[in-house]
Amino acid sequence: MLLGLTGGRLLPSPRRCLLHCRHIKSAATAASGVGDGVLSAFRSICGEDGVSLGEAVREQHGKDESVHRCRPPDVVVFPRCVEEVSALAKVCHKHRLPIIPFGTGTGLEGGVGAVKGGVCFSLRNMEQVLDLHPEDFDVTVEPGVTRKALNAYLRDTGLWFPVDPGADASLCGMAATSASGTNAVRYGTMRENVMNLEVVLADGSIVHTAGKGRRPRKTSAGYNLTNLFVGSEGTLGIITKTTLRLYGIPEAMVSAVCSFPSVQAAVDSTVQTLQAGVPIARIDPEFLDDVMIDACNRFSSLSYPVTPTLFLEFHGSEQSLEEQVKTAEDITQSNGGSDFQWARDTETRNRLWKARHDAWYAALALRPGCKAYSTDVCVPLSRLPQIIVETKEDLIENRLTGPIAGHVGDGNFHCLMVVDPNNPEEMHRVHLFTERLARRALAMDGTCTGEHGVGLGKRALLCEEMGPVGIQVMRSLKDTLDPNSLMNPGKILQREEP
Amino acid sequence: MLLGLTGGRLLPSPRRCLLHCRHIKSAATAASGVGDGVLSAFRSICGEDGVSLGEAVREQHGKDESVHRCRPPDVVVFPRCVEEVSALAKVCHKHRLPIIPFGTGTGLEGGVGAVKGGVCFSLRNMEQVLDLHPEDFDVTVEPGVTRKALNAYLRDTGLWFPVDPGADASLCGMAATSASGTNAVRYGTMRENVMNLEVVLADGSIVHTAGKGRRPRKTSAGYNLTNLFVGSEGTLGIITKTTLRLYGIPEAMVSAVCSFPSVQAAVDSTVQTLQAGVPIARIDPEFLDDVMIDACNRFSSLSYPVTPTLFLEFHGSEQSLEEQVKTAEDITQSNGGSDFQWARDTETRNRLWKARHDAWYAALALRPGCKAYSTDVCVPLSRLPQIIVETKEDLIENRLTGPIAGHVGDGNFHCLMVVDPNNPEEMHRVHLFTERLARRALAMDGTCTGEHGVGLGKRALLCEEMGPVGIQVMRSLKDTLDPNSLMNPGKILQREEP
Repeated sequence: MLLGLTGGRLLPSPRRCLLHCRHIKSAATAASGVGDGVLSAFRSICGEDGVSLGEAVREQHGKDESVHRCRPPDVVVFPRCVEEVSALAKVCHKHRLPIIPFGTGTGLEGGVGAVKGGVCFSLRNMEQVLDLHPEDFDVTVEPGVTRKALNAYLRDTGLWFPVDPGADASLCGMAATSASGTNAVRYGTMRENVMNLEVVLADGSIVHTAGKGRRPRKTSAGYNLTNLFVGSEGTLGIITKTTLRLYGIPEAMVSAVCSFPSVQAAVDSTVQTLQAGVPIARIDPEFLDDVMIDACNRFSSLSYPVTPTLFLEFHGSEQSLEEQVKTAEDITQSNGGSDFQWARDTETRNRLWKARHDAWYAALALRPGCKAYSTDVCVPLSRLPQIIVETKEDLIENRLTGPIAGHVGDGNFHCLMVVDPNNPEEMHRVHLFTERLARRALAMDGTCTGEHGVGLGKRALLCEEMGPVGIQVMRSLKDTLDPNSLMNPGKILQREEP
Repeated sequence: MLLGLTGGRLLPSPRRCLLHCRHIKSAATAASGVGDGVLSAFRSICGEDGVSLGEAVREQHGKDESVHRCRPPDVVVFPRCVEEVSALAKVCHKHRLPIIPFGTGTGLEGGVGAVKGGVCFSLRNMEQVLDLHPEDFDVTVEPGVTRKALNAYLRDTGLWFPVDPGADASLCGMAATSASGTNAVRYGTMRENVMNLEVVLADGSIVHTAGKGRRPRKTSAGYNLTNLFVGSEGTLGIITKTTLRLYGIPEAMVSAVCSFPSVQAAVDSTVQTLQAGVPIARIDPEFLDDVMIDACNRFSSLSYPVTPTLFLEFHGSEQSLEEQVKTAEDITQSNGGSDFQWARDTETRNRLWKARHDAWYAALALRPGCKAYSTDVCVPLSRLPQIIVETKEDLIENRLTGPIAGHVGDGNFHCLMVVDPNNPEEMHRVHLFTERLARRALAMDGTCTGEHGVGLGKRALLCEEMGPVGIQVMRSLKDTLDPNSLMNPGKILQREEP
């Protein structure tokens, strides 16, 4: 099933998202392997309060913000430190119990579902910001620390962590899913910004992917374990610390909006702006298509022309920004774009970008009572116009609502599919659509997932994307690091039942 | 042994570097496993000309530009395409013959030495630039294509590939060793710039690390195989294609030089410049210490003050550069730095940077008849002054000549050790010194190798750096992908004899 995403980051906290949970086991049972002996061992490690069998707790840990159905674990544990994570994992290993790491539950591909039952490791009690080194532009955080919490913590340092997937996700969770978002062209994704990880492996041993406490800005010391675990979605180990690169907060930011006669013109403008801009500035263009901008106009009482639209943000010094905006304006106009609307101060910038920020709500408002989820294919820049045009035709042909928003500087875009989850026929049409879209991206040298990960939803597509040898290599890595298939089983790789 | 480096990129071509080869086997023998049947199979794959048993050819493929002694392979093969590489590897796999990939032989840690004999795969005949996509800022190259050859090929496109380790290395070889160099602060290392690899595995199967022909600018599709093979130094497979990110050639470049009263002042200035500069520009500071600048003055008849010196290069637009240079000048002066000498046009820039470019020759000229090699530890920026000061004291105390040059924006620096290779007592002192230096870096949260790799020289230090669990994980990955230990045996990981 490719029906992965609700973009639920805008939904209420997962702790209250119990509406669509089904198939909930009544309690941990001996049959599940989580017997009294195991529970007693868990309690001796992280205390009475650190182990929960409650139905509500298990349910809230059985789903993320996607439309994948709730698959609650048999038990949820709440370790307070890496030593407890390790000790709990050793118990699971001894009893061959699945381990599912849980950060904030803001994933979009069903990554936390306990498809084989087992033990959910909720890491919310590990929420320390550790080892901030402002002069070295790095910080180490525990898995309970979210993106916004870190940036609040950093407020007085002049530094920030820019990777922004929208959700206020756990930074270790973002490492686990190789997240990115709106700032990737400027600052890179998690892959480029994680310097070291502490990981508890399936047998409970603890590894530091770049050596314990190490934080050089570059290294050639052996295999790159850090980037093996970034994006491994909990299937190779539990990330218990991540060391991140930080950046100086730019002296100034300018936001701008511009309308274009066609998708091609908007993308041409993007490519040329990046080409001119890469050496001088941090520019990150966001794209909304005509359907999306129309929805945003209705939702937020705006009056943008109903045509493909670029939202730009420039980061730099006061003086450099003027030059950059001018360069971008020239390029824009040469591609038939309208005059820039642009803004410097935070308030006006936020007003200008309101359409982009509200896109998800605006899409949902197109069909009240429906749910939404998001595709996330990514293709080389030059293929963007064609894939967007073909995808829009496909949407119309198949009577589907799917306004498009994209991190267009990366070639990554989302169809925000608005569907009635109680209409199986429509859900099926959407499923077929998303598969066609993914295959269209694959045929254009792209990927089925630019930033949401594989999880449950894209396992079959991953096989098409990688080919049999690539999948075999991935499987062999998984088998090596997790020979008993305990780590978040059923995710990324499809596997026959044991 | 840590005596890895001659920085031999400035020596004559490895094809003529036969002076220090010893222990050369007289010919491939049945005992080595390379019998007539194997040779005949090789010849049927890549022709008579594609297989060489000649002593000179084997010798020139048995060493890189380091001081590690020559270890010639039993035979050298010259495949012309990936299919031939695969077929040859299958023969090796069947007969359990070691496989050693060879690009340009410009490595610095003994990575091409055939420590267990076997078959050297010289990839020089695979020299096509494939699939240039200027509008997508990417290109795919075969392993015979060097950095300079690619940039010459790109000359008319307005694009370039900026990673620059000094040597005119093969780009696939640079991927294999996770190389970087002078532009890493601005543009990243190979880790950030390789998008996809084609790799022939130990059994001859061919894998595309991001799926065949794929080149999205970001992906979350399963395990990051690309960065597992980047830096694997030929021990997991033979890289036969690499897809690289390209960048727009900056509109303008400005070079600048500035003297400082102390190492601390130079590094403080670097940190502050990066902090101010990161959002607005691509700035990459290079550092020479007083000993190095004195050597450069003597060698090139220059008259720089004999104090710690920064060489800066700014990339950007004409207008933005003025602002950047002014910012950097202000920061420099507030740290007690001298007035900038700066230059815009290529000729004056080259003259200004002559000291930096000639550092290697200048170091060698300090002791005519001696050889040089380079350490490459990397530490967090804030630890640089201390480690450089301690290292200079260590050099003096142990009567060693080791001027320092560094990619200081990364915290990465080289002691260009000038030694008499025929003086075992001095060589031993140097060995002990380099071990102390590496351990000093490890104690400061750094790495023993920022950009040269582990090869033969740093295997013991890698164990200290990673700790036993990290090494065990690396070893398990190696065993999984190369169960018979055929791929470049003896490199990165120390292993008991089978």
